[in-house]
Amino acid sequence: MTEYDVLTIGNAIVDIIAQADDDFLIAQAVQKGGMTLIETARARQLYDAMGPAVETSGGSAANTVAGVVSLGGTGAYIGKVANDELGTIFTHDIRAQKVRYETTPLEGEPPTARSMILVTPDGERSMSTYLGACVELGPEDIDEALVAAAKLTYFEGYLWDPPRAKEAILKAASIAHANGREVAMSLSDAFCVHRYRKEFLDLLQSGTVDIVFANESEVLALYETDDVELAIRRIAKDARRLAAVTRGDEGCVAVSGAETVAVPAVALARLLDTTGAGDLFASGFLRGHTDGLGLEDSARLGAVAAGHIIEQIGPRPQQQLAKLPGAKEILDRIAG
Amino acid sequence: MTEYDVLTIGNAIVDIIAQADDDFLIAQAVQKGGMTLIETARARQLYDAMGPAVETSGGSAANTVAGVVSLGGTGAYIGKVANDELGTIFTHDIRAQKVRYETTPLEGEPPTARSMILVTPDGERSMSTYLGACVELGPEDIDEALVAAAKLTYFEGYLWDPPRAKEAILKAASIAHANGREVAMSLSDAFCVHRYRKEFLDLLQSGTVDIVFANESEVLALYETDDVELAIRRIAKDARRLAAVTRGDEGCVAVSGAETVAVPAVALARLLDTTGAGDLFASGFLRGHTDGLGLEDSARLGAVAAGHIIEQIGPRPQQQLAKLPGAKEILDRIAG
Repeated sequence: MTEYDVLTIGNAIVDIIAQADDDFLIAQAVQKGGMTLIETARARQLYDAMGPAVETSGGSAANTVAGVVSLGGTGAYIGKVANDELGTIFTHDIRAQKVRYETTPLEGEPPTARSMILVTPDGERSMSTYLGACVELGPEDIDEALVAAAKLTYFEGYLWDPPRAKEAILKAASIAHANGREVAMSLSDAFCVHRYRKEFLDLLQSGTVDIVFANESEVLALYETDDVELAIRRIAKDARRLAAVTRGDEGCVAVSGAETVAVPAVALARLLDTTGAGDLFASGFLRGHTDGLGLEDSARLGAVAAGHIIEQIGPRPQQQLAKLPGAKEILDRIAG
Repeated sequence: MTEYDVLTIGNAIVDIIAQADDDFLIAQAVQKGGMTLIETARARQLYDAMGPAVETSGGSAANTVAGVVSLGGTGAYIGKVANDELGTIFTHDIRAQKVRYETTPLEGEPPTARSMILVTPDGERSMSTYLGACVELGPEDIDEALVAAAKLTYFEGYLWDPPRAKEAILKAASIAHANGREVAMSLSDAFCVHRYRKEFLDLLQSGTVDIVFANESEVLALYETDDVELAIRRIAKDARRLAAVTRGDEGCVAVSGAETVAVPAVALARLLDTTGAGDLFASGFLRGHTDGLGLEDSARLGAVAAGHIIEQIGPRPQQQLAKLPGAKEILDRIAG
C-alpha cells in the first residue's frame, strides 16, 4: 500500500451551521463553546428552533486530515457514516479532498451523524451533536494495512463517546506501534475530558499515544487545575513524544522533552467562525511533523491553518492551504 | 389569512457549491454562467468529479422570498421537495427564515432537487441542476387563499422546465388578478429564454405578468437581438406594469410607462460568488415595490441586496439584509 503521511480516525459528521445570538443559546440551554451530545428528539427540537443554516462536512479528525492534504500532505480517514444523503455528502467531500476513505457505511438506521453548530457574533461555536451512525464504529473498521502504511495515526478524544470506538483505537494504536509508526490524539473538548479524564491520562502515561493536542481548557480539565503553566508542564511530561497546546489568540506552545517553543497566533483579517480551529492547528502541525520539520515550523504551519479556518464559515478549508502566504514559505523549505 | 407582501413560486432546490477553475468547466463540458438541466447519471458523474462542497438551500424564487423577509417584508413560498434529508434541509431553512412554506412534499422518488454550482475564481457561477421532485409541482399545489392573500405573486421562468408547473403558474396568475393582485416573473436564464421564448413573450404581451425581471443576456435572448437598449425598450413596452433589467456591474434600469430610472451597482468589498445576484435584486425591488416605494428606491434596495449576496458564498443571506447600511436608510423611510 502507498504510504500516507497521516491517517485520522473520528466521528464522521455533517455540520449544520447557523448564526445565533447569546440569548438564543441561553433560551435553548446550549452550552456555549462546548460540544454537547444530543438524542433524536432534542436534535429535532433544536433544529426546528434554530435559524437558516448551511451544511458542510465536519468531524474533528476528518477536518484535520482534510487540512493535511490541503497543505500538500497525503492522508486517509476512518469513520462511520450511514448510506444516506448526508453520508453521501460526507463521503464525497473527503474523497474530493483526495483523502483515502473506504470505511463501510452503515446500512439502515441510525442515520449519518450531524452537529448543529451555532455561531455567535463573537465567532465562538457551540455544538450539539447527534452521533447517529458513529455509534457503530468498531475494531472491525480498522484496516491493518492502512494503519501500517500511515506515518502517523491520529484520533479524536470524542471517540470515547460512542461505545466501541475505543476498541478500534486501541487496535489501531497497537498496529501503528508494531510497525514503528506514531500515534497522536486530540483531547477534543473540555467536557469530553471531564467525562474520560482517567482514560485519557492513561492513554498518555501508558505510551499508547505519542503526541497529544489540547487547548487550554482541555489541559486544565485533564489536570483538574486552573494553572495553565503547571498543566502544560504536566502534559509535556505525560506525553511520550510531544504535547502541543493551543492558547487561542495567544498562539500555542509545543513541548518535546527539554525543548519548548511558543508561536504566536497569526493576525486575522476577521474572525467569522472558530469551528475547526483546533482541528486545523493539528493539520498544520502534523503536516510539518510528518515531513520532518521541527517543533517551531510545525507549530507555525498549525497557526497559519488555524488562522485561515476561523476567517471562513465551516471547518473544511475552502482554499488550498498550501498556497497561503505563511504556509508556502515553510512548505517550500520541505520541498527544497 | 394574513396578508403577505410577496408569494414566490419556483423549483425548490438545495445547492451544492464548490470552487472550480475554468479548465474543470471545459473538461466537464459545463456551460459557464448558465443553468443546465442534468439527469441522474450525469448528476452522479459530475458530483464524483467535482471538489469538496458546501450545501445551502437555493432555488431562484425561494432565494428571492428569503431576501424579501430578510429585508423586513413578509413572504410565502410554493415549491416541491421530496420527503428526504435534502427536503428537510430546504424546508427548515425557508421556514427558519420566517417564510410561510406548506407545499406537500413528495413521498418516494424522485428525491429533492439539487444544483451543483461551480464557482470559478472570477466569482461566476455555473449551475448543473437535477430537478428531482420539482417535476411533480402542479396546479394542485396552488393554495388559492394564499395567492389571494399575497400583494404580489412572483415566479421564475425556470418553472417552464418541469412539465406541469406552468399550469400551476397560470392558475396562480389568474387567482392573483381576480383578487386585484400583481404578478411578476423572472426570465431566469438566457438558455431558459431560448427554450421558451415565445411562451415568455406571450406571458408579457397577454398581461398574465405585470412586472418582469431580467438581466442583459436574458432580455437580448428574448428579443433575439444584440442591442441592449433596443431590447430594454421592447421589454418595457411588453411589460404591463414595469420591467427591471440588471446589468451586472453597470447596475440596473427600471422602466414603467414613461418613467425610466438607472441605478448604479453598489461598490463591492470582494466578489466571491455571483449565485443569487439576480434573485436578491428581485428581493430588494419587490420589498420596496410592495410597500409603495417608487422605481428608484425599489431599484436601490435591489442593488444593495444583490451586492451583499455576491460578497458571500451561496444565495441565501447570512446576515439580516434590513440592517445593511444602504438598505436601512430606505427602509427607515417606509417605517417613518
